Amino acid sequence: MKKYKIGFQGELGAFSQEAVTQLLGERAIVRPFQRFEEVFQGLDSGETDAAVIPIENTLAGSVHENYDHLLRFDVAIVAETNVRIVHNLIAAPGVRFRDIQRVYSHPVALNQCLRFFADHPRVERSPFYDTAGSVKMIMEEKPDGAAAIASSVAASIYGASILRRSIEDDRQNFTRFFLLNGKRRVLPPRATVKTWKTSVVFTTRNIPGALFRSLSAFALRDLNLTKIESRPLRGKPWEYLFYVDFEGKQDDPVTKKALGHLAELADFLRVLGTYPRG
Amino acid sequence: MKKYKIGFQGELGAFSQEAVTQLLGERAIVRPFQRFEEVFQGLDSGETDAAVIPIENTLAGSVHENYDHLLRFDVAIVAETNVRIVHNLIAAPGVRFRDIQRVYSHPVALNQCLRFFADHPRVERSPFYDTAGSVKMIMEEKPDGAAAIASSVAASIYGASILRRSIEDDRQNFTRFFLLNGKRRVLPPRATVKTWKTSVVFTTRNIPGALFRSLSAFALRDLNLTKIESRPLRGKPWEYLFYVDFEGKQDDPVTKKALGHLAELADFLRVLGTYPRG
Repeated sequence: MKKYKIGFQGELGAFSQEAVTQLLGERAIVRPFQRFEEVFQGLDSGETDAAVIPIENTLAGSVHENYDHLLRFDVAIVAETNVRIVHNLIAAPGVRFRDIQRVYSHPVALNQCLRFFADHPRVERSPFYDTAGSVKMIMEEKPDGAAAIASSVAASIYGASILRRSIEDDRQNFTRFFLLNGKRRVLPPRATVKTWKTSVVFTTRNIPGALFRSLSAFALRDLNLTKIESRPLRGKPWEYLFYVDFEGKQDDPVTKKALGHLAELADFLRVLGTYPRG
Repeated sequence: MKKYKIGFQGELGAFSQEAVTQLLGERAIVRPFQRFEEVFQGLDSGETDAAVIPIENTLAGSVHENYDHLLRFDVAIVAETNVRIVHNLIAAPGVRFRDIQRVYSHPVALNQCLRFFADHPRVERSPFYDTAGSVKMIMEEKPDGAAAIASSVAASIYGASILRRSIEDDRQNFTRFFLLNGKRRVLPPRATVKTWKTSVVFTTRNIPGALFRSLSAFALRDLNLTKIESRPLRGKPWEYLFYVDFEGKQDDPVTKKALGHLAELADFLRVLGTYPRG
Protein backbone atom coordinates (compact mmCIF):
# COMPACT_ATOMS: atom_id res chain seq x y z
CA MET A 1 0.00 0.00 0.00
CA LYS A 2 1.35 3.38 -1.03
CA LYS A 3 1.63 5.80 1.91
CA TYR A 4 1.19 9.58 1.80
CA LYS A 5 2.70 12.27 4.00
CA ILE A 6 -0.20 14.43 5.22
CA GLY A 7 0.25 17.83 6.88
CA PHE A 8 -2.12 19.19 9.52
CA GLN A 9 -2.11 21.94 12.16
CA GLY A 10 -1.82 21.10 15.85
CA GLU A 11 -0.16 18.53 18.04
CA LEU A 12 -0.47 14.76 17.50
CA GLY A 13 -3.99 13.83 18.61
CA ALA A 14 -5.62 17.03 17.31
CA PHE A 15 -9.10 16.73 15.79
CA SER A 16 -7.43 17.32 12.41
CA GLN A 17 -5.67 13.99 12.88
CA GLU A 18 -9.06 12.30 13.31
CA ALA A 19 -10.03 13.85 9.97
CA VAL A 20 -6.83 12.47 8.39
CA THR A 21 -7.75 8.99 9.65
CA GLN A 22 -11.32 9.29 8.35
CA LEU A 23 -10.07 10.40 4.93
CA LEU A 24 -7.03 8.17 4.41
CA GLY A 25 -6.90 5.52 7.13
CA GLU A 26 -3.68 3.52 7.07
CA ARG A 27 -2.42 5.28 3.96
CA ALA A 28 -1.51 8.42 5.94
CA ILE A 29 1.76 9.30 7.62
CA VAL A 30 0.99 12.44 9.62
CA ARG A 31 3.19 15.53 9.74
CA PRO A 32 2.03 18.08 12.36
CA PHE A 33 2.71 21.83 11.93
CA GLN A 34 2.29 24.62 14.47
CA ARG A 35 0.46 27.11 12.25
CA PHE A 36 -2.01 26.81 9.37
CA GLU A 37 0.27 28.86 7.13
CA GLU A 38 3.03 26.27 7.63
CA VAL A 39 0.64 23.50 6.58
CA PHE A 40 0.11 25.30 3.25
CA GLN A 41 3.84 26.07 2.89
CA GLY A 42 4.68 22.39 3.48
CA LEU A 43 2.32 21.43 0.68
CA ASP A 44 3.74 24.14 -1.58
CA SER A 45 7.34 23.04 -1.08
CA GLY A 46 6.53 19.35 -1.59
CA GLU A 47 7.47 18.47 1.99
CA THR A 48 4.04 16.84 2.28
CA ASP A 49 1.94 15.03 -0.34
CA ALA A 50 -1.36 16.47 0.83
CA ALA A 51 -2.85 18.41 3.75
CA VAL A 52 -5.97 18.34 5.91
CA ILE A 53 -7.40 21.65 7.20
CA PRO A 54 -10.54 22.54 9.18
CA ILE A 55 -12.78 24.95 7.27
CA GLU A 56 -15.85 25.37 9.49
CA ASN A 57 -17.38 24.26 12.77
CA THR A 58 -21.14 24.08 13.35
CA LEU A 59 -20.84 26.13 16.57
CA ALA A 60 -17.80 28.39 16.13
CA GLY A 61 -18.27 29.10 12.41
CA SER A 62 -15.70 29.34 9.65
CA VAL A 63 -11.94 29.11 10.05
CA HIS A 64 -11.44 32.39 8.18
CA GLU A 65 -7.67 32.22 8.10
CA ASN A 66 -7.87 29.06 5.99
CA TYR A 67 -10.18 30.75 3.48
CA ASP A 68 -7.43 33.35 2.99
CA HIS A 69 -4.77 30.63 2.54
CA LEU A 70 -6.94 28.77 -0.02
CA LEU A 71 -6.73 31.87 -2.20
CA ARG A 72 -3.05 32.63 -1.58
CA PHE A 73 -1.66 29.15 -2.25
CA ASP A 74 -2.02 27.03 -5.37
CA VAL A 75 -3.98 24.10 -3.91
CA ALA A 76 -6.96 21.97 -4.91
CA ILE A 77 -9.67 20.61 -2.62
CA VAL A 78 -10.01 16.88 -3.43
CA ALA A 79 -12.16 15.61 -0.53
CA GLU A 80 -14.11 16.72 2.52
CA THR A 81 -15.16 15.04 5.76
CA ASN A 82 -17.05 15.95 8.92
CA VAL A 83 -15.70 15.04 12.36
CA ARG A 84 -17.96 15.03 15.41
CA ILE A 85 -16.16 17.01 18.12
CA VAL A 86 -16.28 15.16 21.46
CA HIS A 87 -14.54 16.92 24.34
CA ASN A 88 -13.21 14.78 27.18
CA LEU A 89 -11.76 15.75 30.55
CA ILE A 90 -8.31 14.19 30.59
CA ALA A 91 -5.67 13.89 33.34
CA ALA A 92 -2.48 12.02 34.15
CA PRO A 93 -3.10 8.43 35.36
CA GLY A 94 -3.77 8.37 39.12
CA VAL A 95 -5.16 11.91 39.26
CA ARG A 96 -8.73 11.79 40.65
CA PHE A 97 -11.59 14.01 39.55
CA ARG A 98 -11.79 15.64 42.98
CA ASP A 99 -8.12 16.72 42.71
CA ILE A 100 -8.74 18.82 39.58
CA GLN A 101 -8.33 22.56 40.15
CA ARG A 102 -7.43 23.83 36.70
CA VAL A 103 -8.34 22.74 33.16
CA TYR A 104 -6.16 23.61 30.18
CA SER A 105 -7.40 23.67 26.59
CA HIS A 106 -7.86 25.77 23.45
CA PRO A 107 -10.21 28.72 24.21
CA VAL A 108 -12.79 27.44 21.69
CA ALA A 109 -12.92 24.05 23.46
CA LEU A 110 -13.17 25.69 26.92
CA ASN A 111 -16.06 27.79 25.60
CA GLN A 112 -17.84 24.67 24.34
CA CYS A 113 -17.90 23.11 27.83
CA LEU A 114 -19.51 25.97 29.78
CA ARG A 115 -22.06 23.73 31.53
CA PHE A 116 -19.25 21.59 32.95
CA PHE A 117 -17.56 24.70 34.39
CA ALA A 118 -20.89 26.04 35.72
CA ASP A 119 -21.47 22.68 37.49
CA HIS A 120 -17.93 22.70 38.96
CA PRO A 121 -17.21 26.31 39.98
CA ARG A 122 -14.03 25.31 41.87
CA VAL A 123 -12.39 24.36 38.55
CA GLU A 124 -10.52 27.18 36.79
CA ARG A 125 -10.21 27.55 33.01
CA SER A 126 -6.73 28.08 31.52
CA PRO A 127 -6.54 28.96 27.82
CA PHE A 128 -3.85 26.95 26.01
CA TYR A 129 -2.69 27.04 22.36
CA ASP A 130 -4.03 23.59 21.38
CA THR A 131 -6.40 20.89 22.68
CA ALA A 132 -4.06 17.93 22.16
CA GLY A 133 -1.12 20.14 23.16
CA SER A 134 -2.74 20.67 26.56
CA VAL A 135 -2.76 16.87 27.12
CA LYS A 136 0.89 16.68 26.07
CA MET A 137 1.76 19.49 28.51
CA ILE A 138 -0.04 18.02 31.56
CA MET A 139 1.66 14.66 30.89
CA GLU A 140 5.14 16.19 30.53
CA GLU A 141 5.00 18.82 33.28
CA LYS A 142 2.42 17.18 35.58
CA PRO A 143 1.27 20.45 37.21
CA ASP A 144 -0.69 19.91 40.47
CA GLY A 145 -4.45 19.44 40.03
CA ALA A 146 -4.25 19.87 36.26
CA ALA A 147 -6.51 18.42 33.58
CA ALA A 148 -7.00 19.04 29.85
CA ILE A 149 -9.92 19.01 27.42
CA ALA A 150 -9.22 17.14 24.19
CA SER A 151 -10.12 14.15 22.00
CA SER A 152 -9.93 10.55 23.22
CA VAL A 153 -7.22 10.00 20.58
CA ALA A 154 -5.08 12.63 22.34
CA ALA A 155 -5.57 10.83 25.67
CA SER A 156 -4.39 7.53 24.20
CA ILE A 157 -1.44 9.04 22.27
CA TYR A 158 0.01 10.65 25.41
CA GLY A 159 -0.96 7.82 27.79
CA ALA A 160 -3.39 9.96 29.80
CA SER A 161 -6.71 8.91 31.41
CA ILE A 162 -10.20 10.11 30.56
CA LEU A 163 -11.96 11.30 33.75
CA ARG A 164 -15.21 12.48 32.11
CA ARG A 165 -16.34 11.67 28.58
CA SER A 166 -18.22 14.03 26.25
CA ILE A 167 -18.45 17.13 28.45
CA GLU A 168 -19.31 19.45 25.51
CA ASP A 169 -22.49 21.53 25.91
CA ASP A 170 -23.87 20.78 22.47
CA ARG A 171 -23.75 17.41 20.69
CA GLN A 172 -24.40 19.13 17.36
CA ASN A 173 -20.71 19.98 17.27
CA PHE A 174 -19.08 19.02 13.96
CA THR A 175 -16.04 20.31 12.12
CA ARG A 176 -15.77 20.09 8.36
CA PHE A 177 -12.31 19.39 6.95
CA PHE A 178 -10.82 19.66 3.46
CA LEU A 179 -8.20 17.34 1.98
CA LEU A 180 -5.90 19.46 -0.20
CA ASN A 181 -3.51 18.61 -2.98
CA GLY A 182 -0.66 20.94 -3.90
CA LYS A 183 0.76 21.61 -7.36
CA ARG A 184 1.46 17.88 -7.80
CA ARG A 185 -1.93 16.18 -7.75
CA VAL A 186 -0.93 13.25 -5.59
CA LEU A 187 -4.30 12.07 -4.35
CA PRO A 188 -7.02 11.90 -6.99
CA PRO A 189 -10.64 12.25 -5.78
CA ARG A 190 -12.56 8.97 -5.65
CA ALA A 191 -14.46 8.65 -8.93
CA THR A 192 -17.26 6.30 -7.86
CA VAL A 193 -19.25 8.75 -5.77
CA LYS A 194 -22.64 10.10 -6.94
CA THR A 195 -22.93 13.45 -5.15
CA TRP A 196 -20.22 16.02 -5.70
CA LYS A 197 -19.54 19.52 -4.50
CA THR A 198 -17.52 22.31 -6.11
CA SER A 199 -15.91 25.25 -4.30
CA VAL A 200 -15.22 28.58 -5.98
CA VAL A 201 -14.00 32.03 -4.97
CA PHE A 202 -14.98 35.17 -6.88
CA THR A 203 -15.30 38.95 -6.71
CA THR A 204 -18.21 40.90 -8.15
CA ARG A 205 -18.25 44.25 -9.89
CA ASN A 206 -19.03 46.95 -7.32
CA ILE A 207 -22.56 47.71 -8.58
CA PRO A 208 -26.00 47.24 -6.95
CA GLY A 209 -27.33 43.71 -7.37
CA ALA A 210 -23.91 42.25 -8.27
CA LEU A 211 -23.99 39.40 -5.72
CA PHE A 212 -27.61 38.59 -6.61
CA ARG A 213 -26.68 38.33 -10.30
CA SER A 214 -23.66 36.15 -9.52
CA LEU A 215 -25.80 33.75 -7.50
CA SER A 216 -28.24 33.55 -10.43
CA ALA A 217 -25.61 31.42 -12.22
CA PHE A 218 -26.40 28.69 -9.67
CA ALA A 219 -30.05 29.41 -8.80
CA LEU A 220 -31.29 29.53 -12.40
CA ARG A 221 -29.79 26.05 -12.91
CA ASP A 222 -31.16 24.62 -9.63
CA LEU A 223 -27.63 24.07 -8.32
CA ASN A 224 -27.88 24.01 -4.53
CA LEU A 225 -25.60 26.42 -2.63
CA THR A 226 -24.37 24.79 0.57
CA LYS A 227 -22.15 27.61 1.92
CA ILE A 228 -21.31 31.23 1.24
CA GLU A 229 -18.53 33.05 3.04
CA SER A 230 -17.30 36.61 2.50
CA ARG A 231 -13.77 37.87 3.21
CA PRO A 232 -12.36 41.37 2.81
CA LEU A 233 -10.66 42.14 -0.52
CA ARG A 234 -7.17 43.45 0.22
CA GLY A 235 -6.49 46.93 -1.14
CA LYS A 236 -10.19 47.67 -1.76
CA PRO A 237 -11.78 48.68 1.57
CA TRP A 238 -15.40 47.54 1.96
CA GLU A 239 -15.23 45.19 -1.04
CA TYR A 240 -15.30 41.42 -0.60
CA LEU A 241 -14.29 38.03 -1.94
CA PHE A 242 -17.08 35.46 -1.94
CA TYR A 243 -16.39 31.78 -1.33
CA VAL A 244 -19.25 29.55 -2.48
CA ASP A 245 -19.70 25.78 -2.17
CA PHE A 246 -22.43 24.21 -4.31
CA GLU A 247 -23.62 20.74 -5.29
CA GLY A 248 -22.19 19.85 -8.70
CA LYS A 249 -19.16 18.26 -10.35
CA GLN A 250 -16.80 20.54 -12.24
CA ASP A 251 -16.94 18.62 -15.54
CA ASP A 252 -20.72 18.03 -15.53
CA PRO A 253 -22.39 19.98 -18.37
CA VAL A 254 -24.72 22.03 -16.10
CA THR A 255 -21.91 22.90 -13.69
CA LYS A 256 -19.69 23.92 -16.60
CA LYS A 257 -22.39 26.27 -17.88
CA ALA A 258 -22.93 27.72 -14.40
CA LEU A 259 -19.18 28.38 -14.05
CA GLY A 260 -19.09 29.96 -17.53
CA HIS A 261 -22.03 32.19 -16.60
CA LEU A 262 -20.40 33.16 -13.28
CA ALA A 263 -17.14 33.99 -15.12
CA GLU A 264 -19.12 36.44 -17.28
CA LEU A 265 -20.57 38.16 -14.20
CA ALA A 266 -17.52 38.09 -11.93
CA ASP A 267 -14.41 40.28 -11.99
CA PHE A 268 -12.32 37.35 -10.81
CA LEU A 269 -13.15 33.63 -10.48
CA ARG A 270 -11.17 30.60 -9.40
CA VAL A 271 -12.36 27.02 -8.91
CA LEU A 272 -10.86 25.75 -5.64
CA GLY A 273 -11.79 22.13 -6.22
CA THR A 274 -14.45 19.55 -6.99
CA TYR A 275 -14.88 16.65 -4.59
CA PRO A 276 -17.25 13.94 -3.34
CA ARG A 277 -19.71 15.18 -0.72
CA GLY A 278 -18.53 14.21 2.77
CA MET B 1 -24.42 69.19 27.80
CA LYS B 2 -25.93 65.80 28.65
CA LYS B 3 -23.26 63.11 29.03
CA TYR B 4 -23.64 59.41 28.20
CA LYS B 5 -21.90 56.40 29.68
CA ILE B 6 -20.49 54.40 26.73
CA GLY B 7 -19.21 50.82 27.05
CA PHE B 8 -16.42 49.43 24.88
CA GLN B 9 -14.06 46.45 24.91
CA GLY B 10 -10.37 46.87 25.70
CA GLU B 11 -8.19 49.07 27.85
CA LEU B 12 -8.35 52.88 27.85
CA GLY B 13 -6.74 54.02 24.59
CA ALA B 14 -8.10 51.12 22.52
CA PHE B 15 -9.14 51.86 18.93
CA SER B 16 -12.75 51.47 20.13
CA GLN B 17 -12.21 54.58 22.25
CA GLU B 18 -11.22 56.51 19.11
CA ALA B 19 -14.54 55.37 17.61
CA VAL B 20 -16.39 56.61 20.73
CA THR B 21 -14.73 60.03 20.32
CA GLN B 22 -15.60 60.17 16.60
CA LEU B 23 -19.23 59.28 17.34
CA LEU B 24 -19.93 61.25 20.50
CA GLY B 25 -17.04 63.62 21.20
CA GLU B 26 -17.32 65.34 24.58
CA ARG B 27 -20.69 63.77 25.31
CA ALA B 28 -19.11 60.37 26.12
CA ILE B 29 -17.94 59.06 29.46
CA VAL B 30 -16.12 55.83 28.59
CA ARG B 31 -16.55 52.56 30.49
CA PRO B 32 -14.03 49.86 29.39
CA PHE B 33 -14.87 46.14 29.67
CA GLN B 34 -12.55 43.16 29.24
CA ARG B 35 -14.73 41.07 26.94
CA PHE B 36 -17.25 41.86 24.20
CA GLU B 37 -19.93 39.86 25.99
CA GLU B 38 -19.55 42.12 29.03
CA VAL B 39 -20.05 45.20 26.84
CA PHE B 40 -23.42 43.78 25.74
CA GLN B 41 -24.31 42.72 29.31
CA GLY B 42 -23.51 46.24 30.58
CA LEU B 43 -25.91 47.67 28.01
CA ASP B 44 -28.55 45.07 28.89
CA SER B 45 -28.39 45.79 32.62
CA GLY B 46 -28.49 49.57 32.11
CA GLU B 47 -25.00 50.03 33.55
CA THR B 48 -24.13 51.92 30.35
CA ASP B 49 -26.33 54.16 28.15
CA ALA B 50 -24.88 52.89 24.88
CA ALA B 51 -21.97 50.83 23.56
CA VAL B 52 -19.44 50.95 20.73
CA ILE B 53 -18.28 47.69 19.13
CA PRO B 54 -16.01 46.89 16.16
CA ILE B 55 -17.83 44.87 13.49
CA GLU B 56 -15.28 44.51 10.66
CA ASN B 57 -11.76 45.43 9.64
CA THR B 58 -10.70 45.88 6.01
CA LEU B 59 -7.74 43.50 6.48
CA ALA B 60 -8.75 41.04 9.22
CA GLY B 61 -12.43 40.76 8.25
CA SER B 62 -15.51 40.55 10.45
CA VAL B 63 -15.56 40.40 14.23
CA HIS B 64 -17.75 37.29 14.18
CA GLU B 65 -18.28 37.14 17.92
CA ASN B 66 -20.07 40.50 17.79
CA TYR B 67 -22.41 39.26 15.06
CA ASP B 68 -23.45 36.50 17.45
CA HIS B 69 -24.00 39.00 20.32
CA LEU B 70 -26.10 41.28 18.06
CA LEU B 71 -28.54 38.39 17.70
CA ARG B 72 -28.47 37.26 21.33
CA PHE B 73 -28.98 40.65 22.97
CA ASP B 74 -31.86 43.08 22.45
CA VAL B 75 -29.90 46.01 21.00
CA ALA B 76 -30.33 48.50 18.15
CA ILE B 77 -27.61 49.86 15.86
CA VAL B 78 -28.05 53.66 15.80
CA ALA B 79 -24.81 54.84 14.15
CA GLU B 80 -21.64 53.60 12.44
CA THR B 81 -18.18 55.06 11.96
CA ASN B 82 -14.89 54.02 10.35
CA VAL B 83 -11.59 54.46 12.17
CA ARG B 84 -8.29 54.37 10.30
CA ILE B 85 -5.99 52.00 12.19
CA VAL B 86 -2.52 53.51 12.65
CA HIS B 87 -0.05 51.32 14.52
CA ASN B 88 2.79 53.05 16.39
CA LEU B 89 5.84 51.62 18.10
CA ILE B 90 5.61 52.86 21.68
CA ALA B 91 8.03 52.64 24.62
CA ALA B 92 8.60 54.15 28.05
CA PRO B 93 10.19 57.64 27.95
CA GLY B 94 13.98 57.41 27.74
CA VAL B 95 13.99 54.00 26.01
CA ARG B 96 15.81 54.30 22.66
CA PHE B 97 14.89 52.47 19.47
CA ARG B 98 18.18 50.53 19.48
CA ASP B 99 17.37 49.16 22.98
CA ILE B 100 14.16 47.44 21.80
CA GLN B 101 14.34 43.62 21.90
CA ARG B 102 10.72 42.62 22.27
CA VAL B 103 7.43 44.13 21.08
CA TYR B 104 4.12 43.36 22.81
CA SER B 105 0.72 43.77 21.17
CA HIS B 106 -2.50 42.03 20.15
CA PRO B 107 -1.72 39.25 17.60
CA VAL B 108 -3.79 41.00 14.90
CA ALA B 109 -1.73 44.20 15.33
CA LEU B 110 1.58 42.25 15.29
CA ASN B 111 0.45 40.56 12.08
CA GLN B 112 -0.31 43.93 10.48
CA CYS B 113 3.29 45.14 10.97
CA LEU B 114 5.18 42.27 9.32
CA ARG B 115 7.41 44.55 7.23
CA PHE B 116 8.66 46.29 10.38
CA PHE B 117 9.61 42.90 11.89
CA ALA B 118 11.22 41.75 8.62
CA ASP B 119 13.33 44.96 8.60
CA HIS B 120 14.34 44.47 12.26
CA PRO B 121 14.94 40.74 12.74
CA ARG B 122 16.53 41.26 16.20
CA VAL B 123 13.10 42.38 17.52
CA GLU B 124 10.90 39.59 18.88
CA ARG B 125 7.10 39.54 18.71
CA SER B 126 5.15 38.87 21.93
CA PRO B 127 1.39 38.34 21.61
CA PHE B 128 -0.56 40.26 24.27
CA TYR B 129 -4.31 40.41 25.00
CA ASP B 130 -4.82 44.04 23.90
CA THR B 131 -3.01 46.82 21.97
CA ALA B 132 -3.56 49.61 24.53
CA GLY B 133 -3.12 47.05 27.33
CA SER B 134 0.39 46.32 26.04
CA VAL B 135 1.28 50.04 26.49
CA LYS B 136 -0.20 50.00 30.00
CA MET B 137 1.85 46.90 30.85
CA ILE B 138 5.22 48.21 29.56
CA MET B 139 4.65 51.45 31.51
CA GLU B 140 3.72 49.65 34.75
CA GLU B 141 6.25 46.80 34.64
CA LYS B 142 8.98 48.43 32.53
CA PRO B 143 10.47 45.13 31.24
CA ASP B 144 13.98 45.55 29.74
CA GLY B 145 14.03 46.39 26.02
CA ALA B 146 10.22 46.30 25.73
CA ALA B 147 8.00 48.21 23.35
CA ALA B 148 4.32 48.01 22.39
CA ILE B 149 2.27 48.53 19.24
CA ALA B 150 -0.85 50.66 19.74
CA SER B 151 -2.66 53.90 18.89
CA SER B 152 -1.17 57.35 19.58
CA VAL B 153 -4.07 57.90 22.01
CA ALA B 154 -2.82 54.94 24.07
CA ALA B 155 0.70 56.44 24.15
CA SER B 156 -0.60 59.75 25.47
CA ILE B 157 -3.02 58.17 28.03
CA TYR B 158 -0.22 56.12 29.65
CA GLY B 159 2.50 58.79 29.26
CA ALA B 160 4.61 56.69 26.87
CA SER B 161 6.68 57.86 23.88
CA ILE B 162 6.16 57.07 20.21
CA LEU B 163 9.42 55.74 18.71
CA ARG B 164 8.10 55.04 15.20
CA ARG B 165 4.80 56.28 13.75
CA SER B 166 2.55 54.33 11.38
CA ILE B 167 4.48 51.06 11.09
CA GLU B 168 1.48 49.14 9.69
CA ASP B 169 2.09 47.30 6.37
CA ASP B 170 -1.07 48.50 4.69
CA ARG B 171 -2.55 52.01 4.96
CA GLN B 172 -5.91 50.69 3.75
CA ASN B 173 -6.54 49.53 7.29
CA PHE B 174 -9.93 50.65 8.62
CA THR B 175 -12.23 49.29 11.29
CA ARG B 176 -15.98 49.84 11.14
CA PHE B 177 -17.73 50.37 14.48
CA PHE B 178 -21.39 50.32 15.51
CA LEU B 179 -22.95 52.53 18.17
CA LEU B 180 -25.59 50.44 19.97
CA ASN B 181 -28.56 51.34 22.10
CA GLY B 182 -30.02 48.89 24.58
CA LYS B 183 -33.68 48.42 25.50
CA ARG B 184 -33.90 52.08 26.53
CA ARG B 185 -33.30 54.08 23.35
CA VAL B 186 -31.02 56.68 24.88
CA LEU B 187 -29.26 58.02 21.80
CA PRO B 188 -31.54 58.67 18.82
CA PRO B 189 -29.93 58.53 15.36
CA ARG B 190 -29.31 61.95 13.80
CA ALA B 191 -32.26 62.75 11.56
CA THR B 192 -30.65 65.23 9.17
CA VAL B 193 -28.51 62.77 7.19
CA LYS B 194 -29.36 61.86 3.58
CA THR B 195 -27.84 58.38 3.17
CA TRP B 196 -28.97 55.65 5.51
CA LYS B 197 -28.17 52.00 5.99
CA THR B 198 -30.24 49.22 7.53
CA SER B 199 -28.91 45.98 9.02
CA VAL B 200 -30.95 42.79 9.19
CA VAL B 201 -30.39 39.16 10.18
CA PHE B 202 -32.43 36.32 8.68
CA THR B 203 -32.55 32.59 8.00
CA THR B 204 -33.79 31.05 4.77
CA ARG B 205 -35.79 27.92 4.21
CA ASN B 206 -33.41 25.05 3.47
CA ILE B 207 -34.26 24.72 -0.25
CA PRO B 208 -32.18 25.32 -3.41
CA GLY B 209 -32.11 28.99 -4.42
CA ALA B 210 -33.31 30.21 -1.02
CA LEU B 211 -30.53 32.80 -0.52
CA PHE B 212 -30.89 34.00 -4.12
CA ARG B 213 -34.63 34.53 -3.60
CA SER B 214 -34.04 36.35 -0.31
CA LEU B 215 -31.58 38.74 -1.95
CA SER B 216 -34.15 39.44 -4.69
CA ALA B 217 -36.08 41.48 -2.10
CA PHE B 218 -33.21 44.01 -2.30
CA ALA B 219 -31.95 43.55 -5.88
CA LEU B 220 -35.38 43.87 -7.54
CA ARG B 221 -35.76 47.26 -5.79
CA ASP B 222 -32.23 48.47 -6.61
CA LEU B 223 -31.33 48.58 -2.92
CA ASN B 224 -27.54 48.29 -2.72
CA LEU B 225 -26.16 45.51 -0.48
CA THR B 226 -22.99 46.70 1.28
CA LYS B 227 -22.19 43.58 3.35
CA ILE B 228 -23.28 39.98 3.76
CA GLU B 229 -22.01 37.76 6.53
CA SER B 230 -23.00 34.18 7.34
CA ARG B 231 -22.86 32.56 10.78
CA PRO B 232 -23.73 28.99 11.78
CA LEU B 233 -27.28 28.43 13.00
CA ARG B 234 -27.10 26.75 16.43
CA GLY B 235 -28.81 23.38 16.60
CA LYS B 236 -29.04 23.02 12.80
CA PRO B 237 -25.66 21.82 11.52
CA TRP B 238 -24.72 23.25 8.08
CA GLU B 239 -27.50 25.84 8.13
CA TYR B 240 -26.72 29.54 8.47
CA LEU B 241 -27.88 32.94 9.65
CA PHE B 242 -27.32 35.73 7.13
CA TYR B 243 -26.48 39.26 8.27
CA VAL B 244 -27.07 41.83 5.53
CA ASP B 245 -26.39 45.59 5.48
CA PHE B 246 -28.02 47.59 2.70
CA GLU B 247 -28.56 51.23 1.75
CA GLY B 248 -32.01 52.33 2.84
CA LYS B 249 -33.90 53.80 5.81
CA GLN B 250 -36.24 51.51 7.70
CA ASP B 251 -39.32 53.75 7.37
CA ASP B 252 -38.79 54.68 3.69
CA PRO B 253 -41.57 53.16 1.52
CA VAL B 254 -39.22 51.13 -0.72
CA THR B 255 -37.24 49.77 2.24
CA LYS B 256 -40.50 48.86 4.00
CA LYS B 257 -41.62 46.88 0.94
CA ALA B 258 -38.25 45.14 0.68
CA LEU B 259 -38.41 44.13 4.35
CA GLY B 260 -42.00 42.90 3.87
CA HIS B 261 -40.89 40.84 0.86
CA LEU B 262 -37.91 39.42 2.76
CA ALA B 263 -40.20 38.51 5.69
CA GLU B 264 -42.32 36.45 3.24
CA LEU B 265 -39.25 34.55 2.00
CA ALA B 266 -37.36 34.15 5.29
CA ASP B 267 -37.98 31.71 8.10
CA PHE B 268 -36.83 34.31 10.62
CA LEU B 269 -36.08 38.03 10.21
CA ARG B 270 -35.00 40.76 12.59
CA VAL B 271 -34.06 44.36 11.82
CA LEU B 272 -30.92 45.18 13.82
CA GLY B 273 -31.05 48.91 13.19
CA THR B 274 -31.26 51.76 10.72
CA TYR B 275 -28.58 54.45 10.87
CA PRO B 276 -26.82 57.21 8.92
CA ARG B 277 -24.04 55.96 6.66
CA GLY B 278 -20.67 56.48 8.37
